[in-house]
Amino acid sequence: MTGIITLTTDLGAQDAYVAAMKGVILSINPDAQVIDICHSIEPQNISQAAFLLNTVYGYFPKDTIHIVIVDPGVGSQRRAIILKASQAFFLAPDNGVLSYVMAHAWPREKSVRYKSSLPLVKLKRLPPGFQAISITKAKFWHHPISSTFHGRDIFAPVAAHLSLGVSLEEFGEAITSVNAFPPPHPYSKAKGQLIGHILHIDRFGNLITDISGEDLPSGKLRLEIAGQPIEGLSTSYAEGNQLLALIGSSGYLEVAVKNGSAASLLGAKIGDEVSLKPKD
Amino acid sequence: MTGIITLTTDLGAQDAYVAAMKGVILSINPDAQVIDICHSIEPQNISQAAFLLNTVYGYFPKDTIHIVIVDPGVGSQRRAIILKASQAFFLAPDNGVLSYVMAHAWPREKSVRYKSSLPLVKLKRLPPGFQAISITKAKFWHHPISSTFHGRDIFAPVAAHLSLGVSLEEFGEAITSVNAFPPPHPYSKAKGQLIGHILHIDRFGNLITDISGEDLPSGKLRLEIAGQPIEGLSTSYAEGNQLLALIGSSGYLEVAVKNGSAASLLGAKIGDEVSLKPKD
Amino acid sequence: MTGIITLTTDLGAQDAYVAAMKGVILSINPDAQVIDICHSIEPQNISQAAFLLNTVYGYFPKDTIHIVIVDPGVGSQRRAIILKASQAFFLAPDNGVLSYVMAHAWPREKSVRYKSSLPLVKLKRLPPGFQAISITKAKFWHHPISSTFHGRDIFAPVAAHLSLGVSLEEFGEAITSVNAFPPPHPYSKAKGQLIGHILHIDRFGNLITDISGEDLPSGKLRLEIAGQPIEGLSTSYAEGNQLLALIGSSGYLEVAVKNGSAASLLGAKIGDEVSLKPKD
Repeated sequence: MTGIITLTTDLGAQDAYVAAMKGVILSINPDAQVIDICHSIEPQNISQAAFLLNTVYGYFPKDTIHIVIVDPGVGSQRRAIILKASQAFFLAPDNGVLSYVMAHAWPREKSVRYKSSLPLVKLKRLPPGFQAISITKAKFWHHPISSTFHGRDIFAPVAAHLSLGVSLEEFGEAITSVNAFPPPHPYSKAKGQLIGHILHIDRFGNLITDISGEDLPSGKLRLEIAGQPIEGLSTSYAEGNQLLALIGSSGYLEVAVKNGSAASLLGAKIGDEVSLKPKD
Repeated sequence: MTGIITLTTDLGAQDAYVAAMKGVILSINPDAQVIDICHSIEPQNISQAAFLLNTVYGYFPKDTIHIVIVDPGVGSQRRAIILKASQAFFLAPDNGVLSYVMAHAWPREKSVRYKSSLPLVKLKRLPPGFQAISITKAKFWHHPISSTFHGRDIFAPVAAHLSLGVSLEEFGEAITSVNAFPPPHPYSKAKGQLIGHILHIDRFGNLITDISGEDLPSGKLRLEIAGQPIEGLSTSYAEGNQLLALIGSSGYLEVAVKNGSAASLLGAKIGDEVSLKPKD
Repeated sequence: MTGIITLTTDLGAQDAYVAAMKGVILSINPDAQVIDICHSIEPQNISQAAFLLNTVYGYFPKDTIHIVIVDPGVGSQRRAIILKASQAFFLAPDNGVLSYVMAHAWPREKSVRYKSSLPLVKLKRLPPGFQAISITKAKFWHHPISSTFHGRDIFAPVAAHLSLGVSLEEFGEAITSVNAFPPPHPYSKAKGQLIGHILHIDRFGNLITDISGEDLPSGKLRLEIAGQPIEGLSTSYAEGNQLLALIGSSGYLEVAVKNGSAASLLGAKIGDEVSLKPKD
């Protein structure tokens, strides 16, 4: 184990919730390194957290432990799980927030068109290379257990003990299925045309879509977004036109404005369509 | 000592003030672990910092050093103090910001009704189990001393030296009294009725009151806030009604909206009343 | 080397960009301590980052590595550099963001009056005590290299390897000039009068100017800002009048409002003039 534990939450920066989790972790493993991924996930926005986590976990050392707390069902019967991948451990409520980290193993033929509220489905089996545990054994929890903040009372202490080398089965039973929502993919409306959607808008107002670099048809392309055409792809923000498109740092097609905000210029929002076709 | 130093400040995230404190600490103790509790305390809002600190310090390892910088009197004659409790060290201006961490030792009969501006009183003696030092010896400070940022020039270096094992008396004289404001408590207007107040509104718009779980009368309860009735307590956000009340993760009565903001729905603000009576 | 790496960026807190940089650093040097200086630099605001960095780097241990990512030219021909000073290492795009840390070595007679957009000039030679490297050797980078996020793919891994003791020349060629913009200085319009400018507005609404404590004429002073007079300098926020001026914690003249915001009261903004003359 590396002793690195990351946090992705909707707990914000104005309260002491995140610090309470850190205190619990350090009380158990004083040598843990707790790294903030993001705490400004919109409250209860599971898909936003799922998206962000997937853009970043691959940059951490092998066996890093990632805690994700976007947990509207806390205190209900929703499960708390540990998902072990070849690269990392994920601790989260079983509410779909780990969907994107399993997305590469999702059968492409079962992919769906983007919807603003994707249906949560119970996977029949775990994707290859994954193991999962339902966290049920209270021995490693922080007592008393609040019914509203399992991030502090269950996930933080379990992560800390895991970072000390406690083995997975000590935390609960192995399970063979978890909940996930189908990762959105671009689709074709007409031959040669690809319709994608904005999945994330970053601080710069860049519009990040579900069209990956590998989805792109070869040859010259013509994009359209919010009625505005974009001819071809740029290689950097600096070398493009005012309104430009490029493959961004997460590997996805991104619409940007040089030294400005594409979101503001276009009035764009999550879920908006981006179309792509070969240039005539 | 643990080497863990926490920071609770109104210094915000848009400047480099917090980082300057960390730089000073690490220059003295490169092995210190500096943990952010909160930096978005409203400027000069002493009671908000006092409240937040109290919800979180108990989750940190014994002997953690907590620095609190909400310091409108910096550069004046206000004292800088170290308060040692059985569980932790606190470094702060002597302006009441440590009131809540001493509140459990405050004589209940001297408690007061909530007011938006609580009067600062000089405690006759320290509560049992506490020791205090007035920080007066310049030997451990970072020179030159600015008259506007003792967080960086006095508190940070003193905390760093304390984390290295320098003993309390090296930093100044023992004192037997500090300033505090009386912690607000709910009160009874009519028999069986309890009136509390909103002390904190969190990121989710949850309204956290001064009514603790132990204050609650037994039996079925009826709440009223902003003219809206709430019947009984829920056990979690997920299992309650749209507008609900429960004992939150800090042990206090909290009014919440499922997947929404009670603060927005009710137009509630700090200091607003919540009343509680047995259900007929 | 200390193993301390700081980050000053315009990457914000709503995405996972900063965390990706930390993951890359920790993958190379698991013992690195990564400290956030500020991530809320206004997008592409090079001079704001340059200013903040200069107020804080001196408080860090010798040989701390400071990464600055405000990089509108990422992916273009702009150079990526390491600047070595006696006190610290700086890694940044060669776009002027390191101007202020070299400002003390800038010939005063070549100083300029404040302009909202300062011209970037190529220094003929590095100021005394500085060394610079153009980062060109891909061996230490994180592959594949995105054309839009060199913070993650070039600067973070280079900093991590540098913190492990890799020597400067392994990262690229020594260069003898870098880009910088002339640091703004106050100027005299009439004899005895000094005109300065607001360079930064902090979280409290304090107005920090380019007039340093050393620039001040001796004797009693009269300030004027936004048509409002201020008589003399205060020694602290607490002991001044409602609207006051003092030498702030960065060593510069600062206009403040006691328990309030000078920026709001005066409607002040970056670049506004502050005039100073001896009191009649």
